[in-house]
Amino acid sequence: MTNKVHVGLLGLGTVGGGVFKTIRSNRERIRLRTGADVEITRILVRDMEKERHLDVAAELLTLNREDLLGDERITVFIEVMGGLEPARTIITEALRSGRHVITANKELMAKHGAQLLEEAAANGVHLLFEGSVAGGIPIIHLLQGYLTANRVYAISGILNGTCNYILTEMAKTGREYAAILQDAQELGYAEADPASDVEGHDAAYKLAILTNLAYDARVNVEGIERQGITELRAADIALAEGFGYRVKLVGTSREQDGTAQLSVRPRLLPLSHPLAGIDDVFNAVTIEADVVGELTFIGRGAGEFPTASAVLEDLTKLLQGESAIRRPAWRSCPDESRSAAVCGNFYLAFDGPGEDAVVQELNLLEAALAKAGAAVADRRLLEDGSVWRHAWLIGGVTEQELRAVLAPCLQTADLAAKYLLLPVDGPLAAGVEWKAETSHHEVSVTYPRAL
Amino acid sequence: MTNKVHVGLLGLGTVGGGVFKTIRSNRERIRLRTGADVEITRILVRDMEKERHLDVAAELLTLNREDLLGDERITVFIEVMGGLEPARTIITEALRSGRHVITANKELMAKHGAQLLEEAAANGVHLLFEGSVAGGIPIIHLLQGYLTANRVYAISGILNGTCNYILTEMAKTGREYAAILQDAQELGYAEADPASDVEGHDAAYKLAILTNLAYDARVNVEGIERQGITELRAADIALAEGFGYRVKLVGTSREQDGTAQLSVRPRLLPLSHPLAGIDDVFNAVTIEADVVGELTFIGRGAGEFPTASAVLEDLTKLLQGESAIRRPAWRSCPDESRSAAVCGNFYLAFDGPGEDAVVQELNLLEAALAKAGAAVADRRLLEDGSVWRHAWLIGGVTEQELRAVLAPCLQTADLAAKYLLLPVDGPLAAGVEWKAETSHHEVSVTYPRAL
Repeated sequence: MTNKVHVGLLGLGTVGGGVFKTIRSNRERIRLRTGADVEITRILVRDMEKERHLDVAAELLTLNREDLLGDERITVFIEVMGGLEPARTIITEALRSGRHVITANKELMAKHGAQLLEEAAANGVHLLFEGSVAGGIPIIHLLQGYLTANRVYAISGILNGTCNYILTEMAKTGREYAAILQDAQELGYAEADPASDVEGHDAAYKLAILTNLAYDARVNVEGIERQGITELRAADIALAEGFGYRVKLVGTSREQDGTAQLSVRPRLLPLSHPLAGIDDVFNAVTIEADVVGELTFIGRGAGEFPTASAVLEDLTKLLQGESAIRRPAWRSCPDESRSAAVCGNFYLAFDGPGEDAVVQELNLLEAALAKAGAAVADRRLLEDGSVWRHAWLIGGVTEQELRAVLAPCLQTADLAAKYLLLPVDGPLAAGVEWKAETSHHEVSVTYPRAL
Repeated sequence: MTNKVHVGLLGLGTVGGGVFKTIRSNRERIRLRTGADVEITRILVRDMEKERHLDVAAELLTLNREDLLGDERITVFIEVMGGLEPARTIITEALRSGRHVITANKELMAKHGAQLLEEAAANGVHLLFEGSVAGGIPIIHLLQGYLTANRVYAISGILNGTCNYILTEMAKTGREYAAILQDAQELGYAEADPASDVEGHDAAYKLAILTNLAYDARVNVEGIERQGITELRAADIALAEGFGYRVKLVGTSREQDGTAQLSVRPRLLPLSHPLAGIDDVFNAVTIEADVVGELTFIGRGAGEFPTASAVLEDLTKLLQGESAIRRPAWRSCPDESRSAAVCGNFYLAFDGPGEDAVVQELNLLEAALAKAGAAVADRRLLEDGSVWRHAWLIGGVTEQELRAVLAPCLQTADLAAKYLLLPVDGPLAAGVEWKAETSHHEVSVTYPRAL
């Protein structure tokens, strides 16, 4: 007995095209495994004339959402248009009219997931969103349907393929951010407007969704500490490599005493860190749980097929019936505190003249750091065009304290007031030793030393 | 409403102790999340007097299986005793008497899984076995309950923590296999009788289970191509590193045209390979599927808590009811063919005197290889005690052809007839270029060159 299932597809961009092609190529396998014959019955697009390189019948396409919502045969909607509106309105209407919805929309789920999930539950239908985080990695399936006896207390991940591609290329080629971004745009790895990716919004949406599922916590996505990759220079990547670290944009989330601390920032990872070797457009998620310990999942984070795979696996769950699906708990959470209050290690970089010209200012800065209880573990210097890039590894201090020391010290004529501050994660890189509470005379100064 | 669930525990070794402790520590969380209050009601042990470092009441322990099978309150059995008998008989009786069974027994599942799963289905109960493969990595959950729209066609994995620990230590310290095995035994990472681990049986059992699930195929575990790590010398690890490769014991399984090819062998992996950086007792599994591409899962592969986690997650599935569980397809499969018939790249090592003493023999060997269409991409030499270890990277030949050439050539007085042959996986290490069908004069010979 084959049961025909009519699907309405919302959006026919990169992911939509992947969903369309994969349903066509894998239709028979899905039928054999679930008993359902899936047909894409109607497709909502923004532009009828766009060239799509898809073998899609023109009569499937429509500009009018009512052609889908009003089609009683359609029982499942797949939303791959992205953005808040009109996606939110259409999904809400679909749920209210008793249709299941599968979405890959991270912004929508991060900002309005709780409300939409309530809407689905109230109408006795499902809202599934595996495709919204980390492409083909089944991390939502695992957080929702596994690790029930475990308590997950930390998540860290490389969640944005665009940023990871740019950082990987900067490290490989030594070229600057802007040039590589342009390449990435030409290759289709970055949007024409890259802000959501490179400023960390996209990773923050995904981190919020994972945090919601992992700790049963509701996260205010606007409150997530966030630092993009736009201020990173090739010199910083090279200096960090010299210290023994890779720079990656990492989302971190940690639950402690009922509070969730979230941040999305470029971080220095020692080469032995499980995320340090994740290159190009790959994504990876590491979770820490009380019984199982550390688990890491790696896969392609974006692109038409990995995300289409996630969407299709949500679809096969629906086709296998209610029993294959769990409704996520998605509760409210106390205010998250900022990691600025936590003692840690940092990479500090600023522009200035070569050391000889500012030796007094550098000594003053180091003295001020020592006075605040901070230790300088290592210093490096790299000529970068017309300026020198000064890089210091600083430990044993909170970010707040560190920033309080830095502001006045770097407000001099000879050192750029604008500095870059990135967290450095343990375990320590070979040769780096953090010395807390040391005076600046005892610090192992390797500076000045060009790479 | 709390529902009391009585569990019978079969075995109280390392994993059994982890299960016992974790059920105790996480009982309240399991109750909150599943509504079931889990109690370990009786424990089958082999020795009542053994010192266990566990806070376990003496009256829970028994030497008599009938004390568990005859206890009508017990509805779930957890089998963590290992080995074929008496585990097989007790599990069969438990299933026949209408009890669910959770097992971490890879040998039993690999050899008799099909029959036991049929027994479970016939009696309307479940047999779950997440703990049998890769410790805490939820690979069975993913192969069984996910990737329905995808076709998985390849699996590769580091599936034995003991071997991975030994190989990692050999690489780090340069010490020989036997000395590190002894350390591993003292640390509890290796059994007193290490044969099942170091000869690759354990990894073969796990590979067979994954293959069964991934391709709906039944595997004859005795037929799996298998090479252990006992013949590897520290010199081989160092020579492989010199060529740009890591040596790992890897289980590989590939489905092609309805045939599954399985092997467990030490392989040379280039540093960029996703499994090359998996060290110590960690396990990792990479699967390749048609839509999602490559997915890699990493976690602790053994030890009391990772495996206990897998067992407990199986238990919470049972507690959440029938709907959380899928019955695996576990079908028969055509004969598997051997990879010996596939053209590939190889690491060849043999003992001999230094090059000058055997230059003629080596030239004859290279000429014979060239005649067979094989290319020697690189050669290295390392003094190893009283002999020299000769290592060659050879490409463009099947293993069968290669062995046919090697046997007569190395049967000389001056070159050890016993050689080591390991597969080398792509992508190529930096500096290595395979030249097929080259004559020995055109080969890029870097030999003789000590590391």
